[in-house]
Amino acid sequence: MLTSVLDAASVAVVGASKVETKRGYQTIRTLLNEKYDGDIYPVNPKENSILGLKCYPKISAIEGAVDLALIATPAKTLPAVLEDCGKKGVKGAVILAGGFGETGAEGRQLEDRVVETARKFGIRLIGPNTSGMINLKRHMNLVGMKDVPIGDIALLTQSGNMALTLITEARLKSRKGFSYYVGVGNEADIRFHEYLEFFRQDPETRAVLMYVEGMRQGREFLHQAYKTTREKPVVLLKSGRSAKGKKSAGSHTGALAGISEVAKGAFQRAGIIMIENSDQLFPAAEALSSLPPMKNNNVAILADGGGHATIAADVLTDLGLAIPELDKKTQDGLKKILPAAASVVNPVDVAGGTDADPSLFADCARVMLKDSQVGALLIVGLFGGYGIRFAESLSLMEEDAAHQMGKMVRQKGKPIVVHSLFSREKPHSLDLCRYYGIPVTDSLDIACKNIAVLAEYGEYLRSYRAQASFFMNWGVKATQAGRYIIAGARAEGRRALLEIEAKQLLSSHGAAVPGERLASSPIEAAEAAEAMGGPVVLKIVSPDILHKSDAGGVKVNLAGQKQVQSAYRQIMKNAKAYNPAADIRGVLVSPMAQRGVEVIIGTKTDDQFGPVIMYGLGGVMVEILKDVSFRVLPISRRSARKMIEETKSAPILAGVRGEPPYDKKALVELLLLCSEVMESYPEIEEMDLNPVIVHHEGLSIVDARIILKEEGS
Amino acid sequence: MLTSVLDAASVAVVGASKVETKRGYQTIRTLLNEKYDGDIYPVNPKENSILGLKCYPKISAIEGAVDLALIATPAKTLPAVLEDCGKKGVKGAVILAGGFGETGAEGRQLEDRVVETARKFGIRLIGPNTSGMINLKRHMNLVGMKDVPIGDIALLTQSGNMALTLITEARLKSRKGFSYYVGVGNEADIRFHEYLEFFRQDPETRAVLMYVEGMRQGREFLHQAYKTTREKPVVLLKSGRSAKGKKSAGSHTGALAGISEVAKGAFQRAGIIMIENSDQLFPAAEALSSLPPMKNNNVAILADGGGHATIAADVLTDLGLAIPELDKKTQDGLKKILPAAASVVNPVDVAGGTDADPSLFADCARVMLKDSQVGALLIVGLFGGYGIRFAESLSLMEEDAAHQMGKMVRQKGKPIVVHSLFSREKPHSLDLCRYYGIPVTDSLDIACKNIAVLAEYGEYLRSYRAQASFFMNWGVKATQAGRYIIAGARAEGRRALLEIEAKQLLSSHGAAVPGERLASSPIEAAEAAEAMGGPVVLKIVSPDILHKSDAGGVKVNLAGQKQVQSAYRQIMKNAKAYNPAADIRGVLVSPMAQRGVEVIIGTKTDDQFGPVIMYGLGGVMVEILKDVSFRVLPISRRSARKMIEETKSAPILAGVRGEPPYDKKALVELLLLCSEVMESYPEIEEMDLNPVIVHHEGLSIVDARIILKEEGS
Repeated sequence: MLTSVLDAASVAVVGASKVETKRGYQTIRTLLNEKYDGDIYPVNPKENSILGLKCYPKISAIEGAVDLALIATPAKTLPAVLEDCGKKGVKGAVILAGGFGETGAEGRQLEDRVVETARKFGIRLIGPNTSGMINLKRHMNLVGMKDVPIGDIALLTQSGNMALTLITEARLKSRKGFSYYVGVGNEADIRFHEYLEFFRQDPETRAVLMYVEGMRQGREFLHQAYKTTREKPVVLLKSGRSAKGKKSAGSHTGALAGISEVAKGAFQRAGIIMIENSDQLFPAAEALSSLPPMKNNNVAILADGGGHATIAADVLTDLGLAIPELDKKTQDGLKKILPAAASVVNPVDVAGGTDADPSLFADCARVMLKDSQVGALLIVGLFGGYGIRFAESLSLMEEDAAHQMGKMVRQKGKPIVVHSLFSREKPHSLDLCRYYGIPVTDSLDIACKNIAVLAEYGEYLRSYRAQASFFMNWGVKATQAGRYIIAGARAEGRRALLEIEAKQLLSSHGAAVPGERLASSPIEAAEAAEAMGGPVVLKIVSPDILHKSDAGGVKVNLAGQKQVQSAYRQIMKNAKAYNPAADIRGVLVSPMAQRGVEVIIGTKTDDQFGPVIMYGLGGVMVEILKDVSFRVLPISRRSARKMIEETKSAPILAGVRGEPPYDKKALVELLLLCSEVMESYPEIEEMDLNPVIVHHEGLSIVDARIILKEEGS
Repeated sequence: MLTSVLDAASVAVVGASKVETKRGYQTIRTLLNEKYDGDIYPVNPKENSILGLKCYPKISAIEGAVDLALIATPAKTLPAVLEDCGKKGVKGAVILAGGFGETGAEGRQLEDRVVETARKFGIRLIGPNTSGMINLKRHMNLVGMKDVPIGDIALLTQSGNMALTLITEARLKSRKGFSYYVGVGNEADIRFHEYLEFFRQDPETRAVLMYVEGMRQGREFLHQAYKTTREKPVVLLKSGRSAKGKKSAGSHTGALAGISEVAKGAFQRAGIIMIENSDQLFPAAEALSSLPPMKNNNVAILADGGGHATIAADVLTDLGLAIPELDKKTQDGLKKILPAAASVVNPVDVAGGTDADPSLFADCARVMLKDSQVGALLIVGLFGGYGIRFAESLSLMEEDAAHQMGKMVRQKGKPIVVHSLFSREKPHSLDLCRYYGIPVTDSLDIACKNIAVLAEYGEYLRSYRAQASFFMNWGVKATQAGRYIIAGARAEGRRALLEIEAKQLLSSHGAAVPGERLASSPIEAAEAAEAMGGPVVLKIVSPDILHKSDAGGVKVNLAGQKQVQSAYRQIMKNAKAYNPAADIRGVLVSPMAQRGVEVIIGTKTDDQFGPVIMYGLGGVMVEILKDVSFRVLPISRRSARKMIEETKSAPILAGVRGEPPYDKKALVELLLLCSEVMESYPEIEEMDLNPVIVHHEGLSIVDARIILKEEGS
C-alpha cells in the first residue's frame, strides 16, 4: 500500500536549488552520490538544470512518471504544489516544512487543507514537519545524512535528532544498519500503524526501532503492533512522560489514568519492547534483531575476577532475571577446564584461567550453554582485552573464541551478550563477535538490559495467545435494560446516570447487585429496611446531586424502624438545604455491605486509545500510593487476572495474617463485566465503581457511577 | 598516619623476579619506566640483580631504610616475610596474595596470624587479596597497570576489575585522572575509613571514588565520611544488593532491615553520593571533582531541535530536578539573539539558530546562567558536531563557544554539562569543554545524572548541620529503673524482657505508657478494668510465652466484670494448654487504645553499623509494601522527622479525606526516645514497638518487645 511512497521508482525534488546549503541541493547531490536507482527530477521554475539534471518549472511538466515528490518549499506553497502533484498523478509526497499543526490553530487549518487536497488526488503524505525519509536498499536518501549504514532495522521516529543519534550509534558502536528511516513528523496523513504494517511485510526488515512523542491513532497502532511483534521485534521509547498538566478529568479515575501509563501497558500487551533509558534503545534493537529470543529467564554469567560479575548479578536481578546455580554436570565440566581457584557456580569466575589462553572463554561458553536451564550467556569484563593487556598473540586466541561463540549462538539458538571494558579500543575479536550478531558494549547496564529484552521478547512469544484483541465489538452484547436506561437518561438530557440506574445496567449484564429499593417516604424506607434484615444504608437519589456525601445525602449502618425513618427525614432536609431546586427521586435503601477488601474499578475514554480500564485497591492504596493498573479495553480473563496481580497490594487479596483469601475470581468476573459494558454502549464516556467490597465469597458494588458522552459527540 | 605507606620514599619488592610474566618483574619494570622518585629494592634469595638493580636475599639485608614492602609471594610465606619486615623496621606492606579470609576458616586463621605479626611490629597492611596501589604523583605504580592518567580523584575499590574499568573510562572518555589508587582487598588491617581520612587530608585529592562490596567498620567509615564530604565529594557504588540469603533475623524488624538498605541511607546521611548504575560512577566523580555544586535544584536545558530536550526533561524530572520557566528578562534576552521559531521557555530550542554560527550556544548559555533561579545548564544534542555535519569552519566557532562557556562556569559558579551525540568523534571543541571541567558525554542519562549529583551534593552542603553524629554515648542517659529491669532479666537468665518490663523501661525514659496493671486473679483483673473505665485488653505475662496471640493469651475489647473475669480464666486455660511448664506471672490489664494510625518502630544491632532503627506504617504497609525507612542510630530530631516523611505512606499521617492530622510530633519524640534507649543500654540487641497507635493527639504503645544480647557478647 505504501510501496510506491517508500519504495518510489522516481523522485521529484520540488524546491530544487543550486545553493549548496539548501536542502533542495543537498538532496539531489546525495541521491546522485549514493546512486539512487530511480529517476530524479529537479523542480524549480528559475533553473534549467541542477547538478547536470534537467530542471522542470513544475511537477506537471515532467515527462516521465513520478512516484514521490520531496517538497522543500515553505508551508504556504503546499496547497498549490499538491494540486500540481495531483494533476501529474504523483503517489506520495514528503513535506519537510514546519509551520503546520505544531504551531497552533492557523497552522492546523493549513494542515487540514493540505490533507484534504492530498486525499482528493489520492496522494499519501509523509510529514509535514519531518526530516524526511531514507530507503537504504534503493539508495533513496531524502534526508541528506551521510554514512547511514544499511541493515535490517527499520527506524521510525518523531525527532530528526533522535534519528541522528540512533544512526550515529549504529555506525560507531555496532555493525548494524537500517532498512528504512522515516521521520513521521506531524502524522498528518500516513500514521504510525501504516508504516508499521509496511515494515511488517518488508522481508528485509528484521526489527522496528521507534521513538515516539505522541500518536494519533493509538488503537490502530496497537492492533498493527500486535500483528507485527509475533513476526519481528518492535522496540519503542516514548518520551514526554513528565509533561506537566495531564488533562484534568472530573472523575476520580480520570485523574489517575495518566496517558503514558495507559500507553505503556497497552504497548507491552501488544508485544512491544518498551525502553525507558535512551542509551538502551539502539542496543535493544541491535540485540533483538541479531539474536534468538531467550527460552527462559535464566542467565549464566561468565567473568574473569569479581566486580563486574557482582554488579551484573545485581542489575539482572533488578531486571527480573534469575541467575540459577548451574547443573552439577555443568559445574563438573567447568572444573575440568578451569583452575582450582575458579568459581563454577554462577556467576562463573575463571579466576585468571584465561590469562594464558583466552580461547578458554569459548570452551566455558560451550559447557554453560549446554546446561538446559541456561537461557542466555552474559560475558562480562575483560574479554577482548587480553591481547591489549598482556601479549599481542593472545588476540588471536580471542578471535578464535569469537568465531566459536558466534557459531555456538546459531547452533544452540541461545544468545550470548558481551560486556568488555576494552570495547572502545576496538580489538578485532570484539568486531568478530558483532559480525556473528553478538552485541558488545562497555556498559554493564546496557549489556544486562540486552539480556532483559531478549528474555522479555521470548516470554511474550511463549505466552502469546491469539485471543487478545484491540477491537471493540460495539453494541453486540448490549441488553434491552441497558439501552432503555441510557435512552431514559438521554431523554431527560442527563449525562450522569443515577446510582440506581448504573447498578441496574450492571445488573442487566449479570452483576450481583444487592436487593436495593427506592423509597419515597420514611415509612417505605423502614419497610424496605425490615425486609432486608440487618443494618442498611440510605442514599439520596437525585440527578442534581452527584456528590451524595457532600450533600449529607448518605447515612450508613442504620438499624430499626426509628433510626431508618429519622435518617430518611434528615437526608431529605440536608438535600433540600444543599440544593433547594434539586429534583429528588427518593432515597435508595441498600443492605450494609459485609466487611472485606475495598477496591476501585474505573473506565474512561482515552483520546488516543479509546476505552481503558483502571483497577486498584481502594482507600489510601489508590489515593496515596497510586497503586493501580491499567488496560486498554476489551480485556481477556487472563488480562483481568494480571491487572489484579500486578498491583503491589495484590497479596492483600490472598489474605494476610492467616485470613482466608478474598474472592479474586468474582473480581476478575467484574472486570470482564465492565469490559463488556463499555463495549456494549458506545454512549458511555466513563464509569466508576467505587468502592467495590470484595468478600471471602462474592463482592458488593457499593457505589456505581456512569457518565455518558456528550450527545452527538 | 598512612603517609609512610601511601607516600613511601622507598619500596622493597619481595618476590622480585626476572620472568617477564611475573608480578615481581612487572612491578619493578613499571617503577623504573615511570620513574618512581624513591628507592627500589628487589628481594629474592636466588638472584643477584634484577633489571639492573641489586637484589637482596631478604628485606633485613637491605642497607637503606625501607618504607613499604610489596609482597608478591604466596599466602603461606607471609608470616615469615612479615617477621623479617618487622626486624627491618618496614612501615607498611602491600600483600597481593589471595588465599586468606576470603577462602574460609583456614584462610581466616592465616589472615589473623598475619595481622597479629604486623601489629606486633607496627606494620600497616594493604590487602591481602588486592591488586595493589598506585601513588600517581610519586610515580609509585605497584599495580603494573599502564597509562593510568594523573589527576585529582582518589580511587578506592574492592575490585581490580572495577579499578581497571574506571581508569579506562577516565583515559578514554575524559581528561581526568587519579591522585591515588588503592585496592582495599580483604581490609585485614587498614580499613576503608583510614584511607578516606588520608584522602581527606591530601591537598591534591579533590574527590574520592569508591567501589565497595562489603565493609568491616561501617560506623567508623560513616564518621570519617561525614567529616570528608564537607570538604570534598565522595562518590560510591555498593554492589551485592541482590545477594540471596540475607541474614535471617528472628524478629519482625530484623527480617525487614536488609543490610544494604541501612547502608544506603546511612551513607547518604554522611553526605556520600550513592550511585546505583555503574555507567554513572566515573562520570559522577568527574562532574563533582570539576564543577561547583548546584545552589538549587533548577536546571535550564539548551537544545537545537526536539527529541533530546524532551528526553532530558523526562529523565531530570525522574531524578527530582525542576525545569522551571525562565524569567521574563531571560526570555527577552534569548529572543534577541535567536530566530523567531526558537522556543525560549525551558527547554530552550535554538531551532536552527546556531546552524550558521554555533558560538551562539555560548551567548545563550550566558543569558540563561544569568537567570538567578537557574542552578545549572544542560546542553543536549548537537553541540560539537556542527563542524562535522556542515562546514569545517563551524568547528572554530564551536571552539570559541567552549572557551567562553568554560570561563562562564568559573565566573558564575554554576555548572554546565554537555551531552553531544558527536562525543565519540572527538571534535576539539568538546575536548576544550573538558579542559575547563565541563563533562561531555554521548549518553543523555549520564548527562542528566551528572546534573543530579551536582544538585544532590549542593543540597547536602546547604542542609549540612554540625549536629549529626555517628558515635553512641553508651550508657550516659540510662535510668535507674532501666538498669534494674535489665539486671533483673539477666539474673533470671532471660534475654527477652516481659512486655510489662519493656514498657516500664520505655516509661522510665519518658514514654507515655497507659496505666497498665498486672493482675493475678480474675477478681484483680476485673478491679483493674473497672478502675480504668472503658474497654480493656488482657494479655498473658510469662517469660516462656513470647508469642502471646499464638498461645491464645490475648483478649481484646473487654467490658464489664463478667467479660473480664471470664477472659482471665480463658487466657490461663489457653496458656497452660499451650505450655504446661510455663512460668506464668499473671495477666496484664491495659485500656483499649483509641483508634488511630498503626505504626511500627524497630531497632536492631547491625553487624557493620551497630544500632539501627526502622520505622514504617503498620499492617499491610510494612508487611506487603515494605514501606519503611532506616537510620543508623543515634538520630537527630531532623532525622526522625525525615524518617517519617520519606515513607510513601507519610501522607496518611497528615490525615486523609478531611480527617484532622495525626500527632506526628509525638511520633518524632518516640523515635528519639528509642534512639536514647538504644544508646543507654549496650545490652539491648533489638527492640520492637509493634504496633504503636498514633492518635490525633498523642500515641499508644500497644506492644513492646526488648531482646538483650547474649550474655558476654
